[in-house]
Amino acid sequence: MADLFIALIHHPVLDRRGKIVTSAITSLDIHDLARSARTYEVRAMFVAHPVKELREFAASVRDRWLEGYGRQFDALRREALERVVVVSDLEEAIASIKAVCGVPPLLVHTSARTQGGVSYAALRKELESDGPPFLLLFGTGFGLAPELAERADRVLAPILGPGGYNHLSVRAAASIILDRLRGR
Amino acid sequence: MADLFIALIHHPVLDRRGKIVTSAITSLDIHDLARSARTYEVRAMFVAHPVKELREFAASVRDRWLEGYGRQFDALRREALERVVVVSDLEEAIASIKAVCGVPPLLVHTSARTQGGVSYAALRKELESDGPPFLLLFGTGFGLAPELAERADRVLAPILGPGGYNHLSVRAAASIILDRLRGR
Repeated sequence: MADLFIALIHHPVLDRRGKIVTSAITSLDIHDLARSARTYEVRAMFVAHPVKELREFAASVRDRWLEGYGRQFDALRREALERVVVVSDLEEAIASIKAVCGVPPLLVHTSARTQGGVSYAALRKELESDGPPFLLLFGTGFGLAPELAERADRVLAPILGPGGYNHLSVRAAASIILDRLRGR
Repeated sequence: MADLFIALIHHPVLDRRGKIVTSAITSLDIHDLARSARTYEVRAMFVAHPVKELREFAASVRDRWLEGYGRQFDALRREALERVVVVSDLEEAIASIKAVCGVPPLLVHTSARTQGGVSYAALRKELESDGPPFLLLFGTGFGLAPELAERADRVLAPILGPGGYNHLSVRAAASIILDRLRGR
């Protein structure tokens, strides 16, 4: 099985008008994605933010459950949050994976706006092989900036229900994608 | 296609020790589940709470996007939150569905603790038929009280990843379940 990583990107992402911005970190994103990451055996969840104060906030959200009273109070949450790694940007996440796995990861772009894209069945098959590690990129705000799609190795198809509406929260979308790629 | 409804239950639910409690309403649960409900063409999302003040809070979270400035500001969020119906308890949700559909719904219990349970493929098939409406029950806190499983018509299998950990947030679990039952 290939090693799987995820990154929650806060810059460059889009706002509602399609402008490139930096979004704020939401504590619940960290909790929800860490629990989903643990469930689907993702090796690490990177929280990427260019602003030092927000990285410190993310680390404090994580460490609340890794140290002292929080650690004793909830072992299930600790098991999830242990996988959270706070970084400045995508480059730092890639370097961290390379340090652990020996090779850089293949980057997978996810967006509700993708036309076409690689199918879940095809990517699932790749993840089942003993190939290189994969890093799934999830965008906050209104999604990842297009420049991240250009440098990605795979662009994943959007999540679709029976109709055309696909304005899911990043917490829901990331969980559904992990389930489609790694669920039983 | 059968009519599908979901209900987010705040009583009776379990706390971390397995005691039956009433949980508080979380605004983000309403937003995330409404967006997932809209994506998977769920007809209504019931937010059930026995305390009047918390029902008023839930209604204010919804109405922020259905009226005035919020309505103009974000049409996608409005489309999702329009499906939110605030009720006191499961009985009121059932009565509301009966009023719309002519028959009461079949109740589907969901829990990470279920041993066995109906498969997603089997329930998906039932939902594709023109049978009676279905109401999926999701528990906040540490999940639905066992008494709700006893009166359910179907008890759904838990969500599993490759390993044994399945401590997902209700936001993630509900989204994954809807995707397994109605995703393309």
